[in-house]
Amino acid sequence: MKTVAVIGSTGAVGREIIRLLEMRAFPIRELCCFASPRSAGQFVSFRGEQIPVTVLSKDALHNIDLAFYAAGSAVSREWIPQSSCLCIDSSSAFRMDPSVPLVIPEINASALRISRGLIASPNCSATVMLMPLAPLHWLFRVKRVVVATYQAASGGGAKLLKQLEDETRANLAGQSVPSKLPFPYAFNLYPHNSMLHPTGYVEEEVKMQEETRKILGDDSIAVSATCVRVPVLRAHSVAVNVEFHRPFTMDAVYRAIQHMPGLALFQDPAKNRFATPADATGRNEVLCGRFRIDTTQPNTLEFWSVGDQLLKGAALNAVQIAETLHV
Amino acid sequence: MKTVAVIGSTGAVGREIIRLLEMRAFPIRELCCFASPRSAGQFVSFRGEQIPVTVLSKDALHNIDLAFYAAGSAVSREWIPQSSCLCIDSSSAFRMDPSVPLVIPEINASALRISRGLIASPNCSATVMLMPLAPLHWLFRVKRVVVATYQAASGGGAKLLKQLEDETRANLAGQSVPSKLPFPYAFNLYPHNSMLHPTGYVEEEVKMQEETRKILGDDSIAVSATCVRVPVLRAHSVAVNVEFHRPFTMDAVYRAIQHMPGLALFQDPAKNRFATPADATGRNEVLCGRFRIDTTQPNTLEFWSVGDQLLKGAALNAVQIAETLHV
Repeated sequence: MKTVAVIGSTGAVGREIIRLLEMRAFPIRELCCFASPRSAGQFVSFRGEQIPVTVLSKDALHNIDLAFYAAGSAVSREWIPQSSCLCIDSSSAFRMDPSVPLVIPEINASALRISRGLIASPNCSATVMLMPLAPLHWLFRVKRVVVATYQAASGGGAKLLKQLEDETRANLAGQSVPSKLPFPYAFNLYPHNSMLHPTGYVEEEVKMQEETRKILGDDSIAVSATCVRVPVLRAHSVAVNVEFHRPFTMDAVYRAIQHMPGLALFQDPAKNRFATPADATGRNEVLCGRFRIDTTQPNTLEFWSVGDQLLKGAALNAVQIAETLHV
Repeated sequence: MKTVAVIGSTGAVGREIIRLLEMRAFPIRELCCFASPRSAGQFVSFRGEQIPVTVLSKDALHNIDLAFYAAGSAVSREWIPQSSCLCIDSSSAFRMDPSVPLVIPEINASALRISRGLIASPNCSATVMLMPLAPLHWLFRVKRVVVATYQAASGGGAKLLKQLEDETRANLAGQSVPSKLPFPYAFNLYPHNSMLHPTGYVEEEVKMQEETRKILGDDSIAVSATCVRVPVLRAHSVAVNVEFHRPFTMDAVYRAIQHMPGLALFQDPAKNRFATPADATGRNEVLCGRFRIDTTQPNTLEFWSVGDQLLKGAALNAVQIAETLHV
């Protein structure tokens, strides 16, 4: 039984982590909730108690056994080096640090053995793509991936979620609401607005390439991604075109998918029914389908995958890492 | 000065055709508006007059010089063979018929020379992809395309547009409205629900492959598409990964794009600002950008393209075909 901290406890991911810790009966003696000064003074409900939200400090970190960081890269970069406890970081701050394991437990739990106290949880779009891709990689070895994402508002945090709802309500009433975006979000979508690299790819797309290589443990894997924010609340979708080194059969593909924990084949081709973000919302499993042979190139497969951005894409994966470590 | 008919005159595309015929001062002596029995009796406004909408009949077709078919494949298949006038068909009914030109005037107006009275206007997603792809094909020759679409509600007709607005309004009020879809559309997206082929591709994806080959006049071009309906009102977006036979430079790419009529480079990389459906809505030009070298494969380029589904994706292209024929 441990003292557990959630940093970013009032954000979209932090709230889910706390809900999952309670629901999954994670062994906790005391829960400490931290957030920015803006949110301090609020209360978070946990096991029927109201936990006060306070501002993180050096003193407050002193008695913590396990800290979930869910407040973004800047906070992780500042506070994780000062934390002496086990840290599970949902931000991108340390993901590509060679000494930090980047873990999806169903895929590379073995990477946890090198842990020195910090484990990173991957990018949400990478996770939704990798859950079906990993078992196929083990069988046929991925050579090159071309992926397009359909990313939900929740990936931009609680604020962007609210912006989408407020703007859409105003749009339907013929009004408008102030926005930090230079274009509408109601009934609109936009190329992912993370930092643009000189190569023309944005940071989110680079993450999908780098994190895929690290998690699958194969630096020869090529990934070219297009990341797009869509007016969907909290589940990400990805359209994946993957070329393997080895030939595959559809039977082998389906067997691999069906045996992968945390992944569900979700489709009814007779009814032309495949997974949508609404189907994946609130579900722990990543849902996949639309597996089809791309005959325009040897050993190439197309598929579709959808996952709850706040669950497997973020909070659930972080909690699963903690569970895997038996803390 | 001709007698012009619009079949499907109360639908999303038909209404746009009539608006464009007036706005672009197409030489019309008389406009005849046809629709299904359900819509007959309505009036359509044209040059300040109220034109009655009637049901199509053999007699009614008799005096027509030019007919725009915008009522879907079934109507086109039934009535175009009975039409003795010049027909411009926005449906997919005859697009792949070798005797029927399939035309985007900026790309293959020359195909109009084989016309025997029927010209087909292409699929809207294919058009949004082909406007930037064609000038690049002429320079570097397309080998293989992997494309993912983000298709607006308008592509499913006026009914689907209304469904999206009604459902979203109800969702925000915590209510629900009846739907023919087996999942919500409000804040949701879904793999395109056109007919599923035994190959695993849906009809919409097959159209993108076949129509690309026919319009670019090169049967060796390989296209693998994933088509997705998003909760956007009336502009389609496409994320395109294209491999060319020949090497390219980014300078040559930009020059080709900037000289293509009907296409606009829409981006401000310094502000990380690229085209969104809201930017393309109501614009005649297809907007493109995010050109970047995909270094994971030789001669490969990624780009992003957005176009108003009802304008260049349908009605505008049909009217441009008529204008090109100088009828």
